[in-house]
Amino acid sequence: MYPVGPYPIWKHATRLADGREIIYFDESPGLGRAAVRDARDLGRVDDLAGPVSALRWDPLAGEWVVIAEQRQDRTFLPPADACPLDPSAPGRPTEIPASSYDVVVFENRFPSLSGARPRPAGPGDPTGGAGPAQPDLLAQRPGLGRCEVVCFTSDHDASFADLTPHRVRTVVEAWADRTVALGALDGVEQVFCFENRGEEIGVTLHHPHGQIYGYPFVTPRTARMLGQARLHAERTGGNLFDDMVAGELAAGTRVVARNDHWAAFVPAAARWPYEVLLFPAERVPDLSLLPDVAREAFCLVYLDVLRRLDALFGSRAPYIAAWHQAPVHAHGPGPGGRREDFALHLQLMSVRRAPGKLKYLAGSESGMGVWINDIVPETAARRLREVL
Amino acid sequence: MYPVGPYPIWKHATRLADGREIIYFDESPGLGRAAVRDARDLGRVDDLAGPVSALRWDPLAGEWVVIAEQRQDRTFLPPADACPLDPSAPGRPTEIPASSYDVVVFENRFPSLSGARPRPAGPGDPTGGAGPAQPDLLAQRPGLGRCEVVCFTSDHDASFADLTPHRVRTVVEAWADRTVALGALDGVEQVFCFENRGEEIGVTLHHPHGQIYGYPFVTPRTARMLGQARLHAERTGGNLFDDMVAGELAAGTRVVARNDHWAAFVPAAARWPYEVLLFPAERVPDLSLLPDVAREAFCLVYLDVLRRLDALFGSRAPYIAAWHQAPVHAHGPGPGGRREDFALHLQLMSVRRAPGKLKYLAGSESGMGVWINDIVPETAARRLREVL
Repeated sequence: MYPVGPYPIWKHATRLADGREIIYFDESPGLGRAAVRDARDLGRVDDLAGPVSALRWDPLAGEWVVIAEQRQDRTFLPPADACPLDPSAPGRPTEIPASSYDVVVFENRFPSLSGARPRPAGPGDPTGGAGPAQPDLLAQRPGLGRCEVVCFTSDHDASFADLTPHRVRTVVEAWADRTVALGALDGVEQVFCFENRGEEIGVTLHHPHGQIYGYPFVTPRTARMLGQARLHAERTGGNLFDDMVAGELAAGTRVVARNDHWAAFVPAAARWPYEVLLFPAERVPDLSLLPDVAREAFCLVYLDVLRRLDALFGSRAPYIAAWHQAPVHAHGPGPGGRREDFALHLQLMSVRRAPGKLKYLAGSESGMGVWINDIVPETAARRLREVL
Repeated sequence: MYPVGPYPIWKHATRLADGREIIYFDESPGLGRAAVRDARDLGRVDDLAGPVSALRWDPLAGEWVVIAEQRQDRTFLPPADACPLDPSAPGRPTEIPASSYDVVVFENRFPSLSGARPRPAGPGDPTGGAGPAQPDLLAQRPGLGRCEVVCFTSDHDASFADLTPHRVRTVVEAWADRTVALGALDGVEQVFCFENRGEEIGVTLHHPHGQIYGYPFVTPRTARMLGQARLHAERTGGNLFDDMVAGELAAGTRVVARNDHWAAFVPAAARWPYEVLLFPAERVPDLSLLPDVAREAFCLVYLDVLRRLDALFGSRAPYIAAWHQAPVHAHGPGPGGRREDFALHLQLMSVRRAPGKLKYLAGSESGMGVWINDIVPETAARRLREVL
């Protein structure tokens, strides 16, 4: 138990009854985490035999797909008094053995990716998760990686938008900590912190929580951004992210919120009815490298944007919040290949296009990859600006 | 009104009150289509000023996004007695002025893409819809293209799986006809025939119908397949699609149905809980080039697969059926660039993973482009094989 970094936070890592790791991020010291034991009678998670899921190669798309059979039986919309993310109470043990917590992270009991272990000393193997070396059209490999759950508060009925700025900061510290920790695991090529919120997008637990994935390859979306960044650098000598943000700020019509350290705007080519990108003013590759002042400023601007989104239709908005981070390893020395050329940013997407109406990914999106958005981005930005 | 091709079908093209085109595909002659007028008092669709939607360039993904504001007000789950896809009845005019029909196609009243006109004589402009020539990060162009609706039957309560093989054949003829017709429009680079079925995936009209899009660019999914096919040809000299289908047939464990002219299998790296690919035994680039015997054989195998899908959970399955076709223009002379190197196939995807449980595209899919599938493809194939 020790304070971490310039922001006072007390971190305590231990194990659940089945061997999964659990890490408390406390806002005050002396909460006696070391004395708490998970007394549940759980079978041991034995991933010594390797990950339980598999990666299959999609030869038509040139992408890996995760086949994770064991997740089919995961906890599905339990009653409020059986929430596994609540603190434990006498006679009601949950995933968190403590009687209260600030922010807590633990390994997912139903992981899509698992089994990644600390990297041995020496240089890593930056394969970048390209396709199979041999042109094997039915290639398969173990679903190595790590999946963690992040609980934002012990208050079951709250939502992220209800958190205090102080608590958001603690969450940021936990994300940054896990970005480093998962990136240090052998085989992990990319760390993804995200939150799914709302039954409308398939959330199976209502308790305010997010997830962190350590993928064993560079994801398709990130690979495409890296490719576009490289192309842009070759064409113009500039940085794609910097130039895009500068263009959005110059246009101004899609800016939703802004402070000295962050800009939040609806992108010109938004795919979702309400989509907001949040970029720090100074480009950094990932959360672990975000300066203290930018971490602090993020809390206010993000809470502001989330509250605007919730205010749009008079009830909590379903959304996905996705942190785009650089891959763990660099991908070549040139522009676009270096980690420092990537720009950390948060993508916030809501599928609600009107009260009671959702955006679905149907034929055009799911079949052809062509997004059709019914809401003009400038209109979305104006509504978000004017709603509060 | 004339019979088309070796399969007897009578086609009659005319206009709706607002100027949109409507085309009847009749299974028998002499239905008096010429005498039918759309008597509704509709404002004229005037797309002389250009398409009403816009394409915006997503610089981070390197893809076009369609911004189609006018679709926000489209008809949304009307009561059964107000279905715009029913035949017209006295006092109840619909989108189809006739009192009955077999298969009918008309221009969508709420199009995502519009305004494409017949191509002038001379060679086309196979730009392929690449990104903006100049590195303009906020590039925009008109949403040129065409969106059509295909009604499969005048029976409001039926579904595709209820159609007779004869009717399916008529639908195939209509798809093939529209593939040629839309591909001949100026600026259309790809034709996409598809069906969305079920409220679970956002269908706003229950009447059995599909849609046809003429896109002004090669779609991201098709572009990726072309890229993978080129890579595969360079590596092996073989055709990616042929080799993949041969591999699936050799493995055998994921085959769902098969006849002399078609193979239906769950792909090894299926992204959706229940996903089936249907490939003709002889590769053709698009529906218009599918031989008569393969068109006939398709009807039986597709109905078989659809009925298996519906039988899985005891109620009609929500699904997307997507025809993957070669782009309208070739993209270079070499392997992977020629139209004839692409393999027409149908992708059938259901989002239902268990009774009452759907697959959602949440953080991993929507944020990172990484699909996680809870159902092992061999299990999905076995269930589909055994269910009937």
